Amino acid sequence: MPWHPSYRGRVLEPDYLFASRHLLPHFVQALCGHLQAVARLPVAEGDDARREIAALHAALAELDRTPLPQQSPDVPDAYFALQRVLEERLGAPTVSWLRIGLSRNDLDMTVYRMRARELLLAAGDQLTTLRGALLAKAADHVDTVLIAQTHHQPGQPTTVAHYLVAVEAMLARDAERLLGAYARLNRCPLGAAALAGSSHPLDRDLTAAALGFDGPVDNTYDAVASSDWEAEVVSVAQSVALNLSRFVCDLLSWTAAGWYRLADDLVQGSSIMPQKRNPVALEHARTRFSRALGAAGMVLYSSHNIPYADLNDFGPDVQGALQMQHVQLSGGIELLLASLEGGDFDRSRLAAVAAATDTTATELADVLVRERALAFPEAHALVAKLVARMQAEGRALPEARGDDLAAVGGPEVDDEVVRTALDPVAFVARRSGFGGPAPDAVRHQLERARQRVERDAASLEGRRQALSGARATLRAS
Amino acid sequence: MPWHPSYRGRVLEPDYLFASRHLLPHFVQALCGHLQAVARLPVAEGDDARREIAALHAALAELDRTPLPQQSPDVPDAYFALQRVLEERLGAPTVSWLRIGLSRNDLDMTVYRMRARELLLAAGDQLTTLRGALLAKAADHVDTVLIAQTHHQPGQPTTVAHYLVAVEAMLARDAERLLGAYARLNRCPLGAAALAGSSHPLDRDLTAAALGFDGPVDNTYDAVASSDWEAEVVSVAQSVALNLSRFVCDLLSWTAAGWYRLADDLVQGSSIMPQKRNPVALEHARTRFSRALGAAGMVLYSSHNIPYADLNDFGPDVQGALQMQHVQLSGGIELLLASLEGGDFDRSRLAAVAAATDTTATELADVLVRERALAFPEAHALVAKLVARMQAEGRALPEARGDDLAAVGGPEVDDEVVRTALDPVAFVARRSGFGGPAPDAVRHQLERARQRVERDAASLEGRRQALSGARATLRAS
Amino acid sequence: MPWHPSYRGRVLEPDYLFASRHLLPHFVQALCGHLQAVARLPVAEGDDARREIAALHAALAELDRTPLPQQSPDVPDAYFALQRVLEERLGAPTVSWLRIGLSRNDLDMTVYRMRARELLLAAGDQLTTLRGALLAKAADHVDTVLIAQTHHQPGQPTTVAHYLVAVEAMLARDAERLLGAYARLNRCPLGAAALAGSSHPLDRDLTAAALGFDGPVDNTYDAVASSDWEAEVVSVAQSVALNLSRFVCDLLSWTAAGWYRLADDLVQGSSIMPQKRNPVALEHARTRFSRALGAAGMVLYSSHNIPYADLNDFGPDVQGALQMQHVQLSGGIELLLASLEGGDFDRSRLAAVAAATDTTATELADVLVRERALAFPEAHALVAKLVARMQAEGRALPEARGDDLAAVGGPEVDDEVVRTALDPVAFVARRSGFGGPAPDAVRHQLERARQRVERDAASLEGRRQALSGARATLRAS
Amino acid sequence: MPWHPSYRGRVLEPDYLFASRHLLPHFVQALCGHLQAVARLPVAEGDDARREIAALHAALAELDRTPLPQQSPDVPDAYFALQRVLEERLGAPTVSWLRIGLSRNDLDMTVYRMRARELLLAAGDQLTTLRGALLAKAADHVDTVLIAQTHHQPGQPTTVAHYLVAVEAMLARDAERLLGAYARLNRCPLGAAALAGSSHPLDRDLTAAALGFDGPVDNTYDAVASSDWEAEVVSVAQSVALNLSRFVCDLLSWTAAGWYRLADDLVQGSSIMPQKRNPVALEHARTRFSRALGAAGMVLYSSHNIPYADLNDFGPDVQGALQMQHVQLSGGIELLLASLEGGDFDRSRLAAVAAATDTTATELADVLVRERALAFPEAHALVAKLVARMQAEGRALPEARGDDLAAVGGPEVDDEVVRTALDPVAFVARRSGFGGPAPDAVRHQLERARQRVERDAASLEGRRQALSGARATLRAS
Repeated sequence: MPWHPSYRGRVLEPDYLFASRHLLPHFVQALCGHLQAVARLPVAEGDDARREIAALHAALAELDRTPLPQQSPDVPDAYFALQRVLEERLGAPTVSWLRIGLSRNDLDMTVYRMRARELLLAAGDQLTTLRGALLAKAADHVDTVLIAQTHHQPGQPTTVAHYLVAVEAMLARDAERLLGAYARLNRCPLGAAALAGSSHPLDRDLTAAALGFDGPVDNTYDAVASSDWEAEVVSVAQSVALNLSRFVCDLLSWTAAGWYRLADDLVQGSSIMPQKRNPVALEHARTRFSRALGAAGMVLYSSHNIPYADLNDFGPDVQGALQMQHVQLSGGIELLLASLEGGDFDRSRLAAVAAATDTTATELADVLVRERALAFPEAHALVAKLVARMQAEGRALPEARGDDLAAVGGPEVDDEVVRTALDPVAFVARRSGFGGPAPDAVRHQLERARQRVERDAASLEGRRQALSGARATLRAS
Repeated sequence: MPWHPSYRGRVLEPDYLFASRHLLPHFVQALCGHLQAVARLPVAEGDDARREIAALHAALAELDRTPLPQQSPDVPDAYFALQRVLEERLGAPTVSWLRIGLSRNDLDMTVYRMRARELLLAAGDQLTTLRGALLAKAADHVDTVLIAQTHHQPGQPTTVAHYLVAVEAMLARDAERLLGAYARLNRCPLGAAALAGSSHPLDRDLTAAALGFDGPVDNTYDAVASSDWEAEVVSVAQSVALNLSRFVCDLLSWTAAGWYRLADDLVQGSSIMPQKRNPVALEHARTRFSRALGAAGMVLYSSHNIPYADLNDFGPDVQGALQMQHVQLSGGIELLLASLEGGDFDRSRLAAVAAATDTTATELADVLVRERALAFPEAHALVAKLVARMQAEGRALPEARGDDLAAVGGPEVDDEVVRTALDPVAFVARRSGFGGPAPDAVRHQLERARQRVERDAASLEGRRQALSGARATLRAS
Repeated sequence: MPWHPSYRGRVLEPDYLFASRHLLPHFVQALCGHLQAVARLPVAEGDDARREIAALHAALAELDRTPLPQQSPDVPDAYFALQRVLEERLGAPTVSWLRIGLSRNDLDMTVYRMRARELLLAAGDQLTTLRGALLAKAADHVDTVLIAQTHHQPGQPTTVAHYLVAVEAMLARDAERLLGAYARLNRCPLGAAALAGSSHPLDRDLTAAALGFDGPVDNTYDAVASSDWEAEVVSVAQSVALNLSRFVCDLLSWTAAGWYRLADDLVQGSSIMPQKRNPVALEHARTRFSRALGAAGMVLYSSHNIPYADLNDFGPDVQGALQMQHVQLSGGIELLLASLEGGDFDRSRLAAVAAATDTTATELADVLVRERALAFPEAHALVAKLVARMQAEGRALPEARGDDLAAVGGPEVDDEVVRTALDPVAFVARRSGFGGPAPDAVRHQLERARQRVERDAASLEGRRQALSGARATLRAS
Repeated sequence: MPWHPSYRGRVLEPDYLFASRHLLPHFVQALCGHLQAVARLPVAEGDDARREIAALHAALAELDRTPLPQQSPDVPDAYFALQRVLEERLGAPTVSWLRIGLSRNDLDMTVYRMRARELLLAAGDQLTTLRGALLAKAADHVDTVLIAQTHHQPGQPTTVAHYLVAVEAMLARDAERLLGAYARLNRCPLGAAALAGSSHPLDRDLTAAALGFDGPVDNTYDAVASSDWEAEVVSVAQSVALNLSRFVCDLLSWTAAGWYRLADDLVQGSSIMPQKRNPVALEHARTRFSRALGAAGMVLYSSHNIPYADLNDFGPDVQGALQMQHVQLSGGIELLLASLEGGDFDRSRLAAVAAATDTTATELADVLVRERALAFPEAHALVAKLVARMQAEGRALPEARGDDLAAVGGPEVDDEVVRTALDPVAFVARRSGFGGPAPDAVRHQLERARQRVERDAASLEGRRQALSGARATLRAS
């Protein structure tokens, strides 16, 4: 009996299309892996069996390279389509070896995890590249003073490098989260069958290893029914998107202020306003992060208040949402990376801003505490008066000297002491403690950051090689 | 200068593709509408101008039917692509009439609203059809007693019809919300240009009417910068999805219990469990409602904490999310509709359940209040004892008689009084007040419900005719 | 039997506390309303009955003014607590009149809607006040030219008033949404009992009117089981929060740029940086809008994938979330209002910015089209050259004259024509079409906006009077 | 100058109240820790300094035990209130030692992380307890056959223990996530001052160790400006809530079916329906998980699209949301735990269901493959016929014998082979592979699960001891 047109048009067809585009190699590989375990079963001991299974494996391995046929009306999904292709070549009895101890439940869940691994690795690589770009840019700007805004007001002098290393530090934690998510999902559901496993003694360790998993999911019910790995994948993406939304927010402000300048191929003019130079690459990065954040809701709602053994919600029906969130996130990262590589801070503008800043006020207060033994609140009040005086006189705070301090009731202090206290470059240089913005301190941070980027890149590379190694072995077998 | 490959690949190309698929007719129509206002400008008074504009209008109107050309490397978007096509036919000077007082800002926002109107009308029609199906099914089951569950326990007898009318009532409010959203967004941004309007005296009422809008958006800044209409569209969809998630939850339980049965073309077997008859149409409806709920987040995040005049976030970049939520919602509704039309309640099972129910206990308590003047708490306690007694004896509560009541310390009551008090059919029949489940009461509700469905269908039809009327007039002009 | 400590501590106690704080008057009023319908039942015809019911009504009406007693271990909730208080005064038989045809289901749902009405009215009044403040500020700044940013770049001249009216226009739509939500939820569930209504012929119209509802919820199942009104309430709040997040984003930028200045009692210094003047009122407004947006999720998830007759999820358990979202939203609005009333645009800064702007470039292009019959793209290109020339010479664009235009290959144009084309004040003045920023155009918009504020204020006032009228009548009866 | 009433009432007062309730000990401890680093600064070398700092430390340490004073009008927050209390006792100069190199930024961020540690440890302990309860219940039900539902239909036999171990496996991964989140946030911001660190050579390692952190946050900008740890905390809670929402969904269905029975102190009756026994503990657990899911949105939105150095959004203003999500999650876990400990599976009902099941059909197909060398599809089709035959005859499938199989065209098979193939107990017993439901296989899983619970409990205990050790050392110093 044919499916209802709504069921076909709304469910089977889009699922088939999605599987054709994104899941086919994983289906083929997973079936090959399963077949290896079948080949070792007692029921497969005879010569005929061996021959049939070998032929099946050979035919199957080839399907990797051929697209799925057009969906025919009586075939619900990619799995059955593959089966039919094989049956047409080898006959149904041979192909039936595949179905021993296999359910669409464990097969699908395996395939979805294999797909998720790829998405995570791709996102992980992008993070590595972006972190590298942040550190490279930071290395260029270890001495570039940046007046950091807090509360939308000039806050304190720091450096561009100090800021960028901080951004990288957020992403370093995201990379850890991503690797944690990878480790937790990289276990193989195969052998779980519908949920209770099979009465055939399938070697689940073998299958898992053949597909590059760290091992089987232990409990077979858990193997097919749990969806927490998907929630984790989208949460990691949310974390990245949230962190980067804040970085982009600053970059856009700085672009507006002329502190940061994008290359010409990343800005766009206006159809009506000839003078416009719109930082569109950054704007569109922002929108992608917003959508990556929102897209998580599709995955979370899909696993909410559903029976534990219900698989459609987080199985076939949510793979598109995972894919979509990935596209948004990776689009945003790519645009941001382009904006970093095809853009730069304007040193002269930043220097001019620093020269006119009053954000070094705190330091003068600290100096008065250290060198004149004032209590901090007293020093704080005194400096506030000095700030007011300089503003009233239309002079930049770094131009203040000993006389000015005295004029607001302060102690006698050498001009040079006042000058260096109020100089943003000196301000930064003095903050040389662990984690501070002083150039040498930042160089140490950069070194530590480079090491963690390398460590994470190596982890990702190890993961990738494990997958390609397994694939090669499986093909060769 | 060519765009950066990331900008091209991640932004321009997917946007162009989306515009080709979903926005082209709206672009053409909006440009035609704008041209009508341009034609009435003082600068367009000469004969040459008239001739050029007429030629431009004619060429433009045709583009409706031809697909957009392949995206060329120096054309950022659909608007420029259309312009170039026209320039190749008519020369740039003629085409430049189009750009008078026009910005991509007001053009895009107009086009997005036109697209949203279509999505709302499509969703509105689906709601109408679903509500009709609910009422038709209800009309079949005015007498079918349903033991409603509350707190996952048998609660009280009502009827299938009473339940279904309640579901329709939720959707009736959703239809109101949808029509409210439509009215609020159905105002035309054209003439707002970049945001400050144009110095050309464009007749914005004329343009609005030509495109089937109820009028122009008043303030031109509001016209291009506001995104609240999108938040409203996705919120209405969330309301529908949330309401239907609850209905589907019940239908799935009832399918499990054999109270509801789906047609064969809406269920699916198992690859491994031959006895399975999985209500997949309903399951996949549920997943679509979950995703429609989650997809709203993409739209909401996109308008969060952005400057008022930033348009990319909720402009080009969020149209795919609106489209996607629509696909999820409409897929869910379609599958649910199929499940209603290709499925039915099993009267005999429901009757058997009703015959064995103890949910009429409340009614006996009420009868004791009415006819024996017991205080309600006393009656309530007495009936609780009767329930316990019948359970202990393994008898269904509706089989209780006067003796049983007396045996637990109750007053003397005629057998017939006890029997009818405990009979679920009588229970329902007595609940004949406004809104109650008694057959006649429900028939009145059905009548009111049919009237509101008709009213809403007429509103939608009126909206649709206004659009097609405007389109026809515009083409003819 | 006492409740399990977890159930008591996690459910019953916090619910009781919440009811004590927020729901008590609604419980009392709803019970009074129900009692009026009971008094008209056939079972209440005798003199004794009348006397008892009158006494009960009198005792009940008083409870409005006394706090709920301490929760005692055997009383699950506020309803039973009230009942017990009454029983101690009047004896159980008298109090039992209350329970005729009443369930906690319909009582609770009535009370929650009554509470939601108050929250909506409070939010509605705040919106009215805020809209009034926006229009008042706009009226002060009809001539204050604002260079609107688009894409984080100076975009076009408009006025502060034009901008503020646009913001009000968003809120005007939100007010409509709020009133729509109010109308949809302002129907009375009482008489629905557990869900199937009662066999007592309760006059539901009477009860509804007594409590200020527009009428009963028709279908009794719908009356107690539907939660879409809650989804609508939180969606309206989301819309307001989203709209205002964008306005606050601009205000914060403008505060940073010195275009907007907050009063001293709305800014905060730094414990360490004496020169800081942090716009904290606006910052904390932003955070409240973020939380109002997020809080909606609590309400939406609570109604997702639950059976239709499950009431706890969106009943007692979600009222705190509704309350909390309201507190966030109203806190944000109040802080924003304070920032509007205790802050102002700095006219001289804005004027200086306008005098140096190159955003009038478009207008010069339009003038060349109108007066020199150039095609728009040609004019656009020419003006782009002029902009470049002036930038290279370090002159502001509005200082350009006919010679400058000629120097980049343009036609001869009178100095005055060039000057007025490039003058931002003239730019604005020419945009005098419907909805544009020209002072008179904005004055018309202001007039229309004031009318809609008055209309909505009158609607809210009508709603409020209907409630207080019903309350007064009920007390008097 | 006094604060604006809106700022006071909407921001300062609720924040002060929250700090009084939840943050006071952390403030005191963090200040003590900071003071230790101050004591080692060059500026603190003299005897007077030592004496003052010692006095300050002593006075400070005491404040742990005294509640904060009433908020006075000129004190913005808890930090200033503490300072004033100290100044009243010791004089301002002594207290000013505290302010050296300290900002509210690093102090607040430290305090919030200290609070988050407590919430995570509390949630972690609850998870441990719940996992223990799941495994204890599982140990009781290793032989209790459960017919698992898939697609809302009877799916396959497994055991209660197998199911419960799967649920524990999800929570084991959540515990890992929680510990990962803890490790990432357990680094100390102190010494970062406003964001650029201090020019005083504060020993940040010392401070971090004194407060039980694993070390300082490296980069000082990152230390105060990053909010990703909050996103991770709420995401972990979402994962737990999502997983448990699915478990509760099943428990509620099983309660409805009589498969699971709650103790009397966890169910509630109806005010109107005497026979009801509502599983309210589970219902209210579900609602708490829904709200924990939704509450995450408040935290995520708060960090979205804000400048990197803006701290209010995810600082003071979001702590209430973190607290609230925690209360919801922990309330849900507690209610679920009570429902596990005060409830049990009904063995006889489950046994009766198993005896009548047709879900063993797959196994018979597998037997035919293994023992009669049928191809699986053929066997599958044959068994489907047998199922139909037995249904038609009104016999349970496990009652089928060799004759029945033959009657539908099957091969001759011994009665005993058919019987054991169709027996659900045998079905389970045969699934003895790794992770399967056979009793011994589950006992192995239980053993592995117990080990991971112990491992995680030890990790949590180690974390807790590190904190209390640091606290003790700090007090003693």
